[in-house]
Amino acid sequence: MKYTLGIDFGTLSGRAALFKVGSPEEICCSVMEYPHAVISTGSEFANKMFGGLPQDFALQHPQDYIDVLKNTIPDVIKKSGVKAEDIIGLGIDFTACTMLPIKKDGTPLCFTDKFKSNPYAYVKLWKHHAAQDKANRLNEIAHERDEKWINSYGGKISSEWMFPKIWETLDKAPEVYEAADSFVEAADWVISRLCGKETKNSCTAGYKAMWNKKYGYPSKEFFASLDKRLENVIEEKFSCPVSPIGSKAGEITKEAAEMTGLCERCAVAVANVDAHVTVPALGMKEKGNMLMIMGTSTCHMLLSDEDRYVPGICGSVEDGILPGMIGYEAGQSCVGDSFAWFTENMLSGEYKAEAESRGISPQQLLAEKAEKIPAGKSGLLALDWWNGNRSILVDVDLSGMILGMTLATKPEEIYKALVESTAYGTRMIIENFETHGVPVTGLYAAGGIAVKSPETMQIYADVTGLEIKISGSSQAPALGSAIFGAVAAGKAKGGYDSVFEAAEQMGSLSDITYIPNKKSKAVYDKLFAEYKVLHDYFGRGQNDVMKRLKKLKDE
Amino acid sequence: MKYTLGIDFGTLSGRAALFKVGSPEEICCSVMEYPHAVISTGSEFANKMFGGLPQDFALQHPQDYIDVLKNTIPDVIKKSGVKAEDIIGLGIDFTACTMLPIKKDGTPLCFTDKFKSNPYAYVKLWKHHAAQDKANRLNEIAHERDEKWINSYGGKISSEWMFPKIWETLDKAPEVYEAADSFVEAADWVISRLCGKETKNSCTAGYKAMWNKKYGYPSKEFFASLDKRLENVIEEKFSCPVSPIGSKAGEITKEAAEMTGLCERCAVAVANVDAHVTVPALGMKEKGNMLMIMGTSTCHMLLSDEDRYVPGICGSVEDGILPGMIGYEAGQSCVGDSFAWFTENMLSGEYKAEAESRGISPQQLLAEKAEKIPAGKSGLLALDWWNGNRSILVDVDLSGMILGMTLATKPEEIYKALVESTAYGTRMIIENFETHGVPVTGLYAAGGIAVKSPETMQIYADVTGLEIKISGSSQAPALGSAIFGAVAAGKAKGGYDSVFEAAEQMGSLSDITYIPNKKSKAVYDKLFAEYKVLHDYFGRGQNDVMKRLKKLKDE
Repeated sequence: MKYTLGIDFGTLSGRAALFKVGSPEEICCSVMEYPHAVISTGSEFANKMFGGLPQDFALQHPQDYIDVLKNTIPDVIKKSGVKAEDIIGLGIDFTACTMLPIKKDGTPLCFTDKFKSNPYAYVKLWKHHAAQDKANRLNEIAHERDEKWINSYGGKISSEWMFPKIWETLDKAPEVYEAADSFVEAADWVISRLCGKETKNSCTAGYKAMWNKKYGYPSKEFFASLDKRLENVIEEKFSCPVSPIGSKAGEITKEAAEMTGLCERCAVAVANVDAHVTVPALGMKEKGNMLMIMGTSTCHMLLSDEDRYVPGICGSVEDGILPGMIGYEAGQSCVGDSFAWFTENMLSGEYKAEAESRGISPQQLLAEKAEKIPAGKSGLLALDWWNGNRSILVDVDLSGMILGMTLATKPEEIYKALVESTAYGTRMIIENFETHGVPVTGLYAAGGIAVKSPETMQIYADVTGLEIKISGSSQAPALGSAIFGAVAAGKAKGGYDSVFEAAEQMGSLSDITYIPNKKSKAVYDKLFAEYKVLHDYFGRGQNDVMKRLKKLKDE
Repeated sequence: MKYTLGIDFGTLSGRAALFKVGSPEEICCSVMEYPHAVISTGSEFANKMFGGLPQDFALQHPQDYIDVLKNTIPDVIKKSGVKAEDIIGLGIDFTACTMLPIKKDGTPLCFTDKFKSNPYAYVKLWKHHAAQDKANRLNEIAHERDEKWINSYGGKISSEWMFPKIWETLDKAPEVYEAADSFVEAADWVISRLCGKETKNSCTAGYKAMWNKKYGYPSKEFFASLDKRLENVIEEKFSCPVSPIGSKAGEITKEAAEMTGLCERCAVAVANVDAHVTVPALGMKEKGNMLMIMGTSTCHMLLSDEDRYVPGICGSVEDGILPGMIGYEAGQSCVGDSFAWFTENMLSGEYKAEAESRGISPQQLLAEKAEKIPAGKSGLLALDWWNGNRSILVDVDLSGMILGMTLATKPEEIYKALVESTAYGTRMIIENFETHGVPVTGLYAAGGIAVKSPETMQIYADVTGLEIKISGSSQAPALGSAIFGAVAAGKAKGGYDSVFEAAEQMGSLSDITYIPNKKSKAVYDKLFAEYKVLHDYFGRGQNDVMKRLKKLKDE
């Protein structure tokens, strides 16, 4: 019997989970919270080391990732009773773009005495938002220069991505930029700590660092037009070649074996991103299949063999999700977040008491009450933009809207309208793909909402008119990473030679699927038509009231 | 020293209040709740007498009004220690159109054995809504026939008014219509019980019964086109001549004197409506002055000497508010109601606990928190249509809207946006008057909100850019009625010969006025411009989504 290990690095903790090769069942797992958590304004570490931090900073300490390896892997081996030599492979997934500057030997600059007090020497977490001006400028220049690659990102790159973050460091801390031999994804850095080799995975390179399998990175001229000093950024700071996901990065080094208890022969997969790695964990491998990873926000991962320009998406990358396929990513920036906003801010004392007396969560109570309201009977319609709109409008300055309220409107009706609005948002994304030649034929869901909120999932099925299959594993990212670990090991060692074969055998779906209700679908078709009109009215410049209100508020 | 009595008949109770002639100060008062309250679906009386009632019925029992006279007037005389002969006048005000069928001698049909089990023989309260189909048909026919008088009502009459209610009775209970010698306002009926003479006041005749001082009632042809049997409704059921408000109806009869303890010489004023009678209670008498009576909904009373067609108002009536002036009425159907809706349905347990621990009402807590938010800083904008729109769109099928929400939006910001939206609604009404040649130069406020909610009043001042003066009396309708009582008595008897003189001496304003804050006004000018665009987009047919949602909900 052979085993494979998946390690999922989240925003606040790392989780190692062990799987039998050939089965989706988790044997055991071990979770460790990052000692430094997120280093941001007001956090103790920030005050001590930097004398504070600006509002939009979100840093991490790379030692925390090493500590996760050091603690969780031995723990899993011990608890499972599995022999280390039977663990044939290991894969990891990470938040992205979560990046850091390192020395040639892989030492993070923040580990050095010279830079330990410089915030720019630390890891910039995905949600570090201090490079917005750089992203804006980068987008402007790319469009001025008519750069073709920006079409792969729906026409706009995000401040959360690699080059705005590098440019910010160059601008604000040129000494850090100078001293760095390389800027790397934390995911790739962790892989280098395990197998002693620097790699760059095609997923983060493609989605977050403007890399394209056919055309490589943007040109020197482009980088020079941002800032003369960036002209040679690729050769100087970003030269490691890109490895397709599904390939093997190397094997556990002696040092890493000592640290983790793993064998030196254990294969290490090229790193991956948490959302993307989830696709094979559901056994998905056909073109036209879309996965929604539904939590506070939703990521949409779509497999295709069509290479098209689709406006308003986050990115399309060859080998980005599965090797040999075009992986499209889109997203909604506010899903569970708006349900929680309503529950936390607007839940009446009466409802709270009812939930408490019944021993259920307030949100569960609202969902239960909302489920009893047939489609269309609330009379409400909302735009799901409480946190701006990621796809397909790519506009952080949009805000939420709800209409149809009367004096008889109940909280559960508003709650339901919020849920419905996010389903309309997903249908907009699906229709946008289809309009631009990328069909969506199957719908899958993972993440907290997919598993915990059947009422929500039924609404999504009714609104999209698609049957929705649900992840069988509640730790799908770790399972996905373990699948890549087994592929890195290869068939000869007891693993797999292809991700597709591995996904088929280890991917897992729940018995529960959500089938569209025809009657509700017919009502939602009408409501979605209304949503679309308002989506375009408020979102495409007919009435920019939301932006003007935001400007007035920020003045 | 002479005294005057005002009796205010509300929806649930009657209140008698005694005033010294020449002073706004209430000497004492007495309140009595109507024993039958509102007779509607599910009420005991309705079940016993009629075996139930439809949803949209709202009836009253005329005996309750007599009981108010019988109980409150002797109580006030006794408590005040004032000699009955020193009470020189009496005025009343009433909800309207609140109407009933009577016999020639004034006996309500519902007092007879033959009709006591027939709901159509009782008082139809102002909010009886079962005649909506009649109102719709009446409006259609009036426009088909190009009837000029309908322009005085903003182009639309309401189901709450006199002739839809009469027509409903004719249609549903022809035996009641047949047996009735007259259909009268309850206000006028109560006056007839006091002074033994039937009168018809110009206020309800004008605002609620399509009467015009110059042209009288609509033509026989018009009534015949509604229903052949209505052809002679004016001669047959509505023949009492109209008396201008401010005139004397008569003097207390011997029978009424015995019932109430008043003197037979006591003058009785022609009846009035609660909102309209409030105008002189604030000492208002100049053209261009507008009074807002602000409670669950708001009535706007505007004095003018311009006789213009103003679309979307409730009515314009010569002698309707003060004799010799054109009185304009407009209204917002949802003001305090939407604040209460939010507070009752959406107030979190946390806020509720905070309010309780501080011993203030939840709404007061929200208002306090909202006051700290400068204009424009919530980023929110709402349309105040939770109960449809009365003026200036006259459309019950419109509904509420709010936009600008983010994950950081707090309940007090939504509360403030609701308050602001009602202020924008008032500014729309004011601008609509001005656009149509009826200037508004002074703003006054009475009612619960005016007295209890300084935060709201400041927002109204800032939004409208007008200084707002507040009623000095918290019982302004009773004071207004007492003013009319003193005018009915006349100067020779110790009262006044004109309402204007009486209003000047007895009308009362609070020391508090609300002065527009220039900075807030400038911000609200911008927000109001946004409100107007959305008002027209959703309210004037550009996007009828609210109506379609309502239809879908009602299907």
